[in-house]
Amino acid sequence: MPSVHELDVTFRASRRVCRIRVGSGALDRLVADLAAEPPGRLLVVVSDSNVAPLHAEPLARRLRDIAGLRVETLTFPAGERHKSRETKAALEDRLAELGAGRDTALVAVGGGVTGDLAGFVAATWNRGVPLVQVPTTVVAMVDAAVGGKTAVNLGRVKNRIGAFHQPWGVYADVALLDTLPAAEYRDGLSEVVKSAVIGDVALFRWLERTHPALAAREPEAETAAVAGALSVKTRVVARDERETGRRAVLNFGHTVAHAIEAASEYGVSHGRAVAIGMSVEGELARGATGFPEAHLRRLRALLVALGLPVALDRGIDAAALLRAARGDKKNRGGELRFALPSRLGRMATRDGTTVALEERALSAAFERAGVD
Amino acid sequence: MPSVHELDVTFRASRRVCRIRVGSGALDRLVADLAAEPPGRLLVVVSDSNVAPLHAEPLARRLRDIAGLRVETLTFPAGERHKSRETKAALEDRLAELGAGRDTALVAVGGGVTGDLAGFVAATWNRGVPLVQVPTTVVAMVDAAVGGKTAVNLGRVKNRIGAFHQPWGVYADVALLDTLPAAEYRDGLSEVVKSAVIGDVALFRWLERTHPALAAREPEAETAAVAGALSVKTRVVARDERETGRRAVLNFGHTVAHAIEAASEYGVSHGRAVAIGMSVEGELARGATGFPEAHLRRLRALLVALGLPVALDRGIDAAALLRAARGDKKNRGGELRFALPSRLGRMATRDGTTVALEERALSAAFERAGVD
Repeated sequence: MPSVHELDVTFRASRRVCRIRVGSGALDRLVADLAAEPPGRLLVVVSDSNVAPLHAEPLARRLRDIAGLRVETLTFPAGERHKSRETKAALEDRLAELGAGRDTALVAVGGGVTGDLAGFVAATWNRGVPLVQVPTTVVAMVDAAVGGKTAVNLGRVKNRIGAFHQPWGVYADVALLDTLPAAEYRDGLSEVVKSAVIGDVALFRWLERTHPALAAREPEAETAAVAGALSVKTRVVARDERETGRRAVLNFGHTVAHAIEAASEYGVSHGRAVAIGMSVEGELARGATGFPEAHLRRLRALLVALGLPVALDRGIDAAALLRAARGDKKNRGGELRFALPSRLGRMATRDGTTVALEERALSAAFERAGVD
Repeated sequence: MPSVHELDVTFRASRRVCRIRVGSGALDRLVADLAAEPPGRLLVVVSDSNVAPLHAEPLARRLRDIAGLRVETLTFPAGERHKSRETKAALEDRLAELGAGRDTALVAVGGGVTGDLAGFVAATWNRGVPLVQVPTTVVAMVDAAVGGKTAVNLGRVKNRIGAFHQPWGVYADVALLDTLPAAEYRDGLSEVVKSAVIGDVALFRWLERTHPALAAREPEAETAAVAGALSVKTRVVARDERETGRRAVLNFGHTVAHAIEAASEYGVSHGRAVAIGMSVEGELARGATGFPEAHLRRLRALLVALGLPVALDRGIDAAALLRAARGDKKNRGGELRFALPSRLGRMATRDGTTVALEERALSAAFERAGVD
């Protein structure tokens, strides 16, 4: 029998509630919830050209059976470069053609690009219409779909233009992961590891024990991993709906990851960059916060066991990484700042502050992590 | 000595504060406040091509004297048709060229178009940067600049794409009204009358006594009128930051006004349309809420005294108005809905509900208000 975890989050400041359903059968719950309490009379299912035939069209067909609802589908070309103002405008023009007014809700079916893009359309259509997130990748399930961040890129700057818009609901059905390519699936697990490091040592231990089941893509293991990672994230965002500071803990591994992505011109995937980033920043944490060497070894061993890298395997030099790190928008006043753990499951910096380090500490960590 | 009223509003749900300063000398306060507590290290002053030389450039020159701040100006072509996605994109491209990051604040200097457009840019740049509103028209001072509504138009649909983004501050300096053409000044007073009708009978009586000073554009009278109208608006929006219902009272006169604007293809100005709208909806209120006939007479007399119309003076027929009213996006399920007063200073519908009326009631009111 399919088990569906309920992880609803109530935002502390606004008291708004976002319903979160995780597991095999979450899509059935979505259909039932939309039938019982539709957030709009027109539902517009948005997906990219890859996901449309696999998941969006079948979902739209099921939703069309709900009495009183009109269901339309919109598709845009797959790929990060289509997360743009131009794609947003094209979707808006189509909404206008459909006669979509305030009584419209958007259903984003896909990975992070779809969630961010359709989410931003929903955030600004009539100054905000309800949004349902149906993530179809591991990263989108454990990270992108929850928290309300929506955006498009501008030129080379990711997420330059966007808004906070909390979804009406997030329905993460691990059955949708079956169509995900192996590399993308594995990459997504690095965000699960990150969640464990920053906030749940029991989840970390479970990952150490259960990674073969995850690698075998067993639904129960997938459900437990996604639900565990999401619990950490919802705890953080509930207290910091609009990213005023506390959300900084979510950036463990990400300062270095963003530098790797930028320096490689996005030739290294986000998930692999985050894995290497955690390895490097774990090294930094050893000196800066007393993160135990044994914990760093366990972190790297888990990443390797999951098929993720802990060192760069291509020709990006430390100087280019440092330049990219310096340009990171999270750095204030030119300092290099990091969100670092003090041990597995616990961050040194939970009050929104970050650790400022000199560049030579970072170059030393790059060296020790196999970047020359 | 210039007097500056302080009307800071604290939003009930989010606890956010928006500082509001009204009067001659409000601009001096803005310069002092930005020097003491700058909301960004880069200030970008946005205005249209009319207002840029009159008010935006002089303000930018003053702000450049503040140590540690970089000040840039952006200008777009004047006119409602430039309140568009294209103008927003052009402003964003310029922000990117200026290297504007999270540490940027926008200063919107102008009327409603500038406030809505620059406000929407601020709402979405890096998912939201601080916004200072410096309204230069009566309508913008008493209505558009306060409440956090930002948007652009899409095709013929006004404000189709936008966001809620509460400003860091609103600085309404009545000295800026000196450059406003007489017709535009007079039109703006209809929103002051609306504020009095929906929430402040003392303001209404004051307007009945003091309208000659307003017509003569005496700064003390202007300050009192703007501050009075703003007090009504801030009381409403503080309880309904994201327009979930209670803000409906602000729509008195506006259901009919929007129909007049649409049916005339915006040949009738918003202020004049609102004046006629209040006259027609006042007539409706007589039957629907017991709005006293004597109050309706006083309302019409005040509008006439301020040089505003109470009946249509051009060839728009009632059938076209009804068609336009039917299309109003505030109508739910095809009914005609109105926010109506029960007497001067008091709305019949303060809990967010509106009064549903049959179309023939509206046609009768059109007739009695001189529309045939």
